[in-house]
Amino acid sequence: EIADAIESLLAPAAAERPLAGKRAVVTSGPTREAIDPVRYISNHSSGKQGHAIASALAALGAEVTLVSGPVSIADPPGVTTVHVDSADQMLAACLAAGRIDIAVCAAAVADWKAARPAGSKIKKKAGMAPPSIELTPNPDILATLSKPGPQRPALVVGFAAETENLVANAIDKRQRKGCDWIVANDVSPAVGTFGSERNTVHLISASGVEDWPTLAKGEVAMRLAGRIALHFGRPTKAEAAE
Amino acid sequence: EIADAIESLLAPAAAERPLAGKRAVVTSGPTREAIDPVRYISNHSSGKQGHAIASALAALGAEVTLVSGPVSIADPPGVTTVHVDSADQMLAACLAAGRIDIAVCAAAVADWKAARPAGSKIKKKAGMAPPSIELTPNPDILATLSKPGPQRPALVVGFAAETENLVANAIDKRQRKGCDWIVANDVSPAVGTFGSERNTVHLISASGVEDWPTLAKGEVAMRLAGRIALHFGRPTKAEAAE
Repeated sequence: EIADAIESLLAPAAAERPLAGKRAVVTSGPTREAIDPVRYISNHSSGKQGHAIASALAALGAEVTLVSGPVSIADPPGVTTVHVDSADQMLAACLAAGRIDIAVCAAAVADWKAARPAGSKIKKKAGMAPPSIELTPNPDILATLSKPGPQRPALVVGFAAETENLVANAIDKRQRKGCDWIVANDVSPAVGTFGSERNTVHLISASGVEDWPTLAKGEVAMRLAGRIALHFGRPTKAEAAE
Repeated sequence: EIADAIESLLAPAAAERPLAGKRAVVTSGPTREAIDPVRYISNHSSGKQGHAIASALAALGAEVTLVSGPVSIADPPGVTTVHVDSADQMLAACLAAGRIDIAVCAAAVADWKAARPAGSKIKKKAGMAPPSIELTPNPDILATLSKPGPQRPALVVGFAAETENLVANAIDKRQRKGCDWIVANDVSPAVGTFGSERNTVHLISASGVEDWPTLAKGEVAMRLAGRIALHFGRPTKAEAAE
């Protein structure tokens, strides 16, 4: 009877922390790619969605490492946050996290970096043509983490930020990268996802496309974390009720 | 006797607000130049020095418009702050301030912008060479405000951020731009001016080069504002005592 009593005491706790024992890495924010010591290329990601996902996974019991590009929002409590600038640093920090069960790549990683960043500030010269910045591809963090093998996380989730043909591009991206799910969100200026508090996303998996309603970024994060728990056969109360 | 009494009451106030009646524009922070709706080129300026100068001029009684690029610090109290992104917007906001006596161009304005910003997000294509970003010069805000004419502010102060040959480049910049003073500061990574709380500057004017000690950015701002008051023949107590 004592064992039964303990089980019934623990059962609600387990349902509330369905990701206990799982290790997750979440990337968030933009990356900054140096042109010279002063200038850089970056993007408008605020980190709000990625940080919220890190918090949501931690709230469900996962042990979370958040790898964050430069953002102006606070490190979430209950999460180990690693701060990086460039895509190269972000990939290294993800790999340094070791064996993980869940990877959520929510960062807006720069696709390209300067091929040859200048060691000193590039001078503007009167009468001279402006320099043209030659670019080279950054490492593909999502594709790297999705690569088949014994180290591959059981679940790899990517994000697709698009201004056009959102769902078609995201379905294509899922196949190309080899990840399990894609969270596709519209970042056209009219929608204004970057920096805003709400997000309209589509969840793309092998089973198809789910259109989610416009939600606060914290709600998108909680719903995604719930789906991740369900994927590991550990539904939250909310997911079990659906 | 009443007039004398009033004068003696007002005199200290005048010495503490030596820039009363003067109108100033201060630019601060970086600019952001769009590559496409998602990506931009920017730089590491924090806006701390420019914002501190706006506050210091206001503290000495000037009516100050602060034209700020995207920064994560608060608008200073007692100052009208106009928020802009690009160099084009920053110039327009400076000109919109109308007739001014003092211009302090402390912003780290991007020298270049994308020649043809893309209307939708530039796609990364597998197997394709990365794009090369063609640049075109931005408007030169300091040179524009320094242009001789009836609208020219009585005092135009520029900043020079350099990683090499700081003073020589700054002397050259003063002549080229046609401004009155240059505040030259070393932004080499070893010194780490960007984002830090202290600044080591040189004040370059027609009379030569003054080397200032390393000071908190607020102290650099107060000293510069004091020199500006002195330039208008209205020494602060600190300047009068020197």
